[in-house]
Amino acid sequence: MLELIAFDADDTLWHTESLYSDAQSRFVKLLAEYHPREWIEQRLYATEMANLRYYGYGIKSFILSMIESSIELTEGRITGREIQQVIDLAKEMLSADVRPLEQVESTVSRLAERYPLMIITKGDLIDQESKVARSGLGGHFKHVEIVSDKTPQSYAALLARYNVRPENFLMVGNSLRSDILPVAAIGGRAVYVPYAVTWAHEAVDAETAGAASFVQLEHIGQLVAVVEKMTDDSH
Amino acid sequence: MLELIAFDADDTLWHTESLYSDAQSRFVKLLAEYHPREWIEQRLYATEMANLRYYGYGIKSFILSMIESSIELTEGRITGREIQQVIDLAKEMLSADVRPLEQVESTVSRLAERYPLMIITKGDLIDQESKVARSGLGGHFKHVEIVSDKTPQSYAALLARYNVRPENFLMVGNSLRSDILPVAAIGGRAVYVPYAVTWAHEAVDAETAGAASFVQLEHIGQLVAVVEKMTDDSH
Repeated sequence: MLELIAFDADDTLWHTESLYSDAQSRFVKLLAEYHPREWIEQRLYATEMANLRYYGYGIKSFILSMIESSIELTEGRITGREIQQVIDLAKEMLSADVRPLEQVESTVSRLAERYPLMIITKGDLIDQESKVARSGLGGHFKHVEIVSDKTPQSYAALLARYNVRPENFLMVGNSLRSDILPVAAIGGRAVYVPYAVTWAHEAVDAETAGAASFVQLEHIGQLVAVVEKMTDDSH
Repeated sequence: MLELIAFDADDTLWHTESLYSDAQSRFVKLLAEYHPREWIEQRLYATEMANLRYYGYGIKSFILSMIESSIELTEGRITGREIQQVIDLAKEMLSADVRPLEQVESTVSRLAERYPLMIITKGDLIDQESKVARSGLGGHFKHVEIVSDKTPQSYAALLARYNVRPENFLMVGNSLRSDILPVAAIGGRAVYVPYAVTWAHEAVDAETAGAASFVQLEHIGQLVAVVEKMTDDSH
């Protein structure tokens, strides 16, 4: 029996990674006279990781790390005008079109007829709420939960709050680290739908992933059949 | 009957405004050679307001607006080093001590014995969660809800989710605009405890406030008696 099906949002329901990688390419171009691409990307990533504990996830955090990184990489020589370009990137990202992945709309609308659906996403509160609205998918979801991190503890607390047992809960997402392994760890069901690109921070080695039990799909369009099979098997 | 008592967090449970005003003073000092204080503050506020729809509330938003404002106010002449000082301000603010207001600890610990308590706060997800933890007050609160805005609609949706009727709900806070008027508008109870300073964005004129029904206290230490009176009256 399934009581609740939850979806990650970024790169599960709609494209996001390309937004970050496009912004990063423009950042690299801005600093091209100072450093090669690899070094810029490496320093930016290191700054992002060091800042996670202050800023958490999301576009504002990414942009603040970009600004800091640009100052470091130019030894303070970056100009105000150039930093304004980075800020403009933030505003573009925050108001960009939200493009659902292929077959997401048909899949969630079919599942919403039979199950309460939830979005569980990390990141920035206002940005994620705005994306749910802009995606046009909001109406299919009964609940939207924006969390600061996705751990076994945070999933367990959330399910307790909704009074759903882990075995009756299915999580669908593109990150082994955030969507799949922590849910499997508390006895929930998980369907992994990899996206074309995985942010380095979300990557998990094969050995860690191998120990957990989950279903992997090539495409979210296969989800309805998998859910049907799951619920057939369990009664 | 009261089923749920909720508190705003910033400047209701702990000091926050001083964190922003101190940061703003240092920002004014940084730009002192360019402009007088009043003009800097006026432009910064205008930038914050224009950016609300992109960034929402919170320290990261405040700092991004400061950076943008510093570029505008110096016509791009601000240096990378100076912008780094603004970024450092953000990190200081995000890791500053969280100082509960006087009598908050004793008040919430007494109320927590009889009622489920909730925090309802606007702002940045990770920053607010971290402040709840750093405040040492977290244990008294059964629920923490971080919302992107506080409107009659958002309160109504939240109460529906917790299955609490507005007349059995009490909200305590320092902002007429966010904590008191929207709750009164949906038939909830509200206790207004003004803080020494009110952010211009949260200010409400006397006429608007005058039409709503709420209790105003000088001090949160008076809350326990007010709650006792409320619950005596209602049975």
